[in-house]
Amino acid sequence: MIIVMQFGAPTEAVDAVCRVIRSRGIDPLVMPGEDRLAIGIPASLSIEDREFLESVVGSMPEVSKVTQTSSPYKLASIEFHRDRTVVEAGPNKIQIGDGGFTVMAGPCSVESYEQFKSAAAIVKGSGAQVLRGGAFKPRTSPYSFQGLQLEGLKIIKQVGEETGLATISEVMSADMVDTVGQHVDILQIGARSMQNFPLLIEAGKSQLPVFLKRGPSATIDEFLLAAEYVLSQGNPRVILCERGVMPLDKTYTRNTLDLSAVPVLKAHTHLPVIVDPSHGTGVARYVAPMALAALVCGADGVMVEMHPDPMSALSDGSQALTPDKYSELTNRLAGLSRYMSETQA
Amino acid sequence: MIIVMQFGAPTEAVDAVCRVIRSRGIDPLVMPGEDRLAIGIPASLSIEDREFLESVVGSMPEVSKVTQTSSPYKLASIEFHRDRTVVEAGPNKIQIGDGGFTVMAGPCSVESYEQFKSAAAIVKGSGAQVLRGGAFKPRTSPYSFQGLQLEGLKIIKQVGEETGLATISEVMSADMVDTVGQHVDILQIGARSMQNFPLLIEAGKSQLPVFLKRGPSATIDEFLLAAEYVLSQGNPRVILCERGVMPLDKTYTRNTLDLSAVPVLKAHTHLPVIVDPSHGTGVARYVAPMALAALVCGADGVMVEMHPDPMSALSDGSQALTPDKYSELTNRLAGLSRYMSETQA
Amino acid sequence: MIIVMQFGAPTEAVDAVCRVIRSRGIDPLVMPGEDRLAIGIPASLSIEDREFLESVVGSMPEVSKVTQTSSPYKLASIEFHRDRTVVEAGPNKIQIGDGGFTVMAGPCSVESYEQFKSAAAIVKGSGAQVLRGGAFKPRTSPYSFQGLQLEGLKIIKQVGEETGLATISEVMSADMVDTVGQHVDILQIGARSMQNFPLLIEAGKSQLPVFLKRGPSATIDEFLLAAEYVLSQGNPRVILCERGVMPLDKTYTRNTLDLSAVPVLKAHTHLPVIVDPSHGTGVARYVAPMALAALVCGADGVMVEMHPDPMSALSDGSQALTPDKYSELTNRLAGLSRYMSETQA
Amino acid sequence: MIIVMQFGAPTEAVDAVCRVIRSRGIDPLVMPGEDRLAIGIPASLSIEDREFLESVVGSMPEVSKVTQTSSPYKLASIEFHRDRTVVEAGPNKIQIGDGGFTVMAGPCSVESYEQFKSAAAIVKGSGAQVLRGGAFKPRTSPYSFQGLQLEGLKIIKQVGEETGLATISEVMSADMVDTVGQHVDILQIGARSMQNFPLLIEAGKSQLPVFLKRGPSATIDEFLLAAEYVLSQGNPRVILCERGVMPLDKTYTRNTLDLSAVPVLKAHTHLPVIVDPSHGTGVARYVAPMALAALVCGADGVMVEMHPDPMSALSDGSQALTPDKYSELTNRLAGLSRYMSETQA
Repeated sequence: MIIVMQFGAPTEAVDAVCRVIRSRGIDPLVMPGEDRLAIGIPASLSIEDREFLESVVGSMPEVSKVTQTSSPYKLASIEFHRDRTVVEAGPNKIQIGDGGFTVMAGPCSVESYEQFKSAAAIVKGSGAQVLRGGAFKPRTSPYSFQGLQLEGLKIIKQVGEETGLATISEVMSADMVDTVGQHVDILQIGARSMQNFPLLIEAGKSQLPVFLKRGPSATIDEFLLAAEYVLSQGNPRVILCERGVMPLDKTYTRNTLDLSAVPVLKAHTHLPVIVDPSHGTGVARYVAPMALAALVCGADGVMVEMHPDPMSALSDGSQALTPDKYSELTNRLAGLSRYMSETQA
Repeated sequence: MIIVMQFGAPTEAVDAVCRVIRSRGIDPLVMPGEDRLAIGIPASLSIEDREFLESVVGSMPEVSKVTQTSSPYKLASIEFHRDRTVVEAGPNKIQIGDGGFTVMAGPCSVESYEQFKSAAAIVKGSGAQVLRGGAFKPRTSPYSFQGLQLEGLKIIKQVGEETGLATISEVMSADMVDTVGQHVDILQIGARSMQNFPLLIEAGKSQLPVFLKRGPSATIDEFLLAAEYVLSQGNPRVILCERGVMPLDKTYTRNTLDLSAVPVLKAHTHLPVIVDPSHGTGVARYVAPMALAALVCGADGVMVEMHPDPMSALSDGSQALTPDKYSELTNRLAGLSRYMSETQA
Repeated sequence: MIIVMQFGAPTEAVDAVCRVIRSRGIDPLVMPGEDRLAIGIPASLSIEDREFLESVVGSMPEVSKVTQTSSPYKLASIEFHRDRTVVEAGPNKIQIGDGGFTVMAGPCSVESYEQFKSAAAIVKGSGAQVLRGGAFKPRTSPYSFQGLQLEGLKIIKQVGEETGLATISEVMSADMVDTVGQHVDILQIGARSMQNFPLLIEAGKSQLPVFLKRGPSATIDEFLLAAEYVLSQGNPRVILCERGVMPLDKTYTRNTLDLSAVPVLKAHTHLPVIVDPSHGTGVARYVAPMALAALVCGADGVMVEMHPDPMSALSDGSQALTPDKYSELTNRLAGLSRYMSETQA
Repeated sequence: MIIVMQFGAPTEAVDAVCRVIRSRGIDPLVMPGEDRLAIGIPASLSIEDREFLESVVGSMPEVSKVTQTSSPYKLASIEFHRDRTVVEAGPNKIQIGDGGFTVMAGPCSVESYEQFKSAAAIVKGSGAQVLRGGAFKPRTSPYSFQGLQLEGLKIIKQVGEETGLATISEVMSADMVDTVGQHVDILQIGARSMQNFPLLIEAGKSQLPVFLKRGPSATIDEFLLAAEYVLSQGNPRVILCERGVMPLDKTYTRNTLDLSAVPVLKAHTHLPVIVDPSHGTGVARYVAPMALAALVCGADGVMVEMHPDPMSALSDGSQALTPDKYSELTNRLAGLSRYMSETQA
């Protein structure tokens, strides 16, 4: 921790800060600087000491700012854990983050056994490895379709078993982690739940793979601290998902897909990173270009919405791909993935 | 709903849109326009029809945009409910939103009976009506103090009974609504939980007053739709709280307090509106000016953090007022409130 | 400047950073820290040294981050200039920032001598001190009304002389500073020109009072650095104006008026601060509550749009006050200003 | 234009709106709707009529909202101009937007003839077609290096002639368009100047190719309206550049590169689109992945910063590529571009 004093701060103000630091048994290091004096804390701090000093010193007279030098996240950080994490999931033990490119696909909502089975067949035929489908749907309006709920979970489980695909579905609250976990292979935590801390803790305890979506206004640090909640429960199987942040306006896209988050995350965490261009743009025609872009900038995979009949989708129809467009995309992704790994070497 | 076609859209494209609309049993109204033709839907639509048309028509060829003309929220809207809501709460049946100015105050976290009792005494002495204190604390980092939890709730209940003050504390998940509801008079739903839909539904079912904080990137419509979740459970006792939105940067404040949300909300909803300048700015010295500003632009009250000894606060110390500053503020608020009501007439 | 190394950075990496620092003739101070080592630069740095070190060291291996400890702005900073600036302007030598509350009012655009004269009469009658009116209008679309330009300036000059009011109008480019400066008392630099550096420099050279509007996505530091451009030309007469920042969405307001910028600016700069609630909200009905709020949170004045006949305004009609609403507002501001100064003591 | 009334708006309010519309000689079309009545204007409107109605009707009682149905931009719109624009530039008549992939590269600032010549040799050797270099530098702080100015322009012209490369440099004000235009082949308008309207108009008049960077908080509509300013001067040679928008925070990147703007722009305008990943991220290590991503999502080219000796760069050193990294990137771009065009068919 570094405390920067205001320009011309009198000796008494500097001394007062030093006294507070010493009151925690720590020796401050006073460092005359350019126009402002800085006080360093050259020691390992406990969480309590750090929070105490940050809040108390930060509001003392003549203090200009308090800067943290320690990493806010540890378990998620590549500084402290130099090997990349590979998350294994599902009956076929697929490997997410092993250098291959994982496609997760399926309809936004599970609407019926027939619809989901038909979607699964297309997904499997395209070579995708993970089947997605919403049973519990977080909807902005209470009047929108909320999903088939438990019935939807049962359909997912059945179709997963019939096809051998790994399955993923969203869990919206801590008390549903067990139930959802009994029906799917990967727990999805949605963007609006990224800081639902009781849910993160339960998902951590479940020891199931957790697919964590970035909140629409979450900074990279907040995102990794949310992952840290899961990791801190002893569950290392966390997959990160960039799905778009608050847009400047919503005239043309629902969100701003932050693709630069992919190389940024790759540089700071060992966890696999997936991109969701369907929610990230909210418009079917932009899904393919952004999925391809995600691949070349280093993502470990994409999650895309595909609906066997988008014209009749009960939610988010306008962002789902038709089976034809979906197949075209997966073909292009496979070819591009090969091209990239051949030329990487 | 209005569908705007692209410039020069051929007749076939217009006809195709009209056919889809007629397939739902609705007669479209074609309206030649400036450079683009529009198609109106002059009828009451069911939710299903509206969502179907929005997503299907929105992705048809030559369609430029689809605009909603109906209000997304109904129960929260002042258009549909012209009388302002007054929320009654606590043992003394205080009235929030009745034209008076409600002060809610207390420490960020309940730390001990002594600390909370001492805070309550100051709060009561200042004439405030609601005592706040966190028992379950949503913290960005898993390593930060998470609150005294159930023990904290018990302290709140005891101190509330001893002082006669109405109490408020945060509930973070649906399965805790009952427990928290048995200990406090008002359920607080935090900014990061604004779109925790299972929680909103349970809070709605509880029939307790619900204090709903705006999410840091929530638009006004999203905020009012979150309130609609609670209202749609038959619970009309919703209090809205503006607490700051995503800042351009965090160098000087933790959030950008959106005070214009106060008159905007007052113009579009009948629910009471409270402002939280403590979290809204994150800095103790800015709390008083923003609290006064909230009052004159029409808020029904403020929630402020006060700590009997901010130097030792376990969380958010740098934004808590000292007892002295707090008393000075409540005096100024009382005087200004009188001045405003005298000059309003 | 403080350089923070990554966790576990090897000695060679630390040494390499130290060598670069020493290559500029500066002695680094190595400071073991919590989990990361920090390197301080306990010396006054020239601009060149600072920029060199920031960019070079920032991209060296195993460096986690580089933090500035010096203030980016000096002339604008209250740390370096403890007396508040009062800007004198116009024929009547009005004093902006002297503790009084300055009202600047007038139509968005000058449309004709008659319209502007009529507006001026109302403005003067209300006790306002500064008459505003646009001659050169920055408009998002090239097809919108661009102002009467030079003819508009002449009208402003004439009406200013006839009424004795100080006048203000926008200058949009460096080469127009002279021309505009010959016709008005205060040069306005619009939000979209906040970082038009040639314009800032010319405005600085003019020695005229400069009214600088905050850009819609400008941070406080960027805003004060824009002021620093003017000040660095030896022109101390800068007035800052908060006029709203990028909103989360534009459904209800055109911008988000950042009122907390008022106390933040007051804490960090000695320059006067004016609030523009007309552009800040973009909606006439929200202007009065936000103007009153600006006053109580410490602004030195407001700029409001008033049109003698808003129904016929050629630009921004929907945010202009009618003469009646305007008079009501100035009365309330005058009363509130008296109340605040009486109770401050 | 569509006017939506509030729920339950009385007949008199509807009539009043219709009267205002008829006062402009236009017949309104009243359309009963779901819960709110809408009034359409089925006619071509002049700009004056549209602005008048928008502002006047928008503030009438019981009006809920006014929606535009016409496109705000015409000359830039692909709806009105279905052929894609190819911009020819420089001595070798390079074609930007013809389906190939254009690389523009060079140092942030021209520092000396030697430095720029050396950069040009590398750029030419890599097969890039456009040489960039700043002579007039927009810098946030008045104390930062402002560029070599006229001397820099002369160096650019000389090196351009010696190498045969097309050249590009920024022009910061309207009165400098002539001077800069005499020294370079393409005028660059920087992000902070995107709404410098006098500059846009002069750049339009110059008939030179104009490289227009998106402002950091500019919406797509604002960006295309800025292009419209240039186009409306009879200059069709506009190249758009996405260079990152306001980030959620600046901890890891300077901006958020909005790559989805590429397919969005391609769907709405016929103008070529270039991506600048150097400013878009602000960090050298993220430039390559984002440049590759730009290519696959449909950009017509990239602009990247390369410095022959980044360790000694006078500005923005930390985002410039070394010659080695630059060559590696151009090789990968060339290969990927070939792969994409082979597999497109």
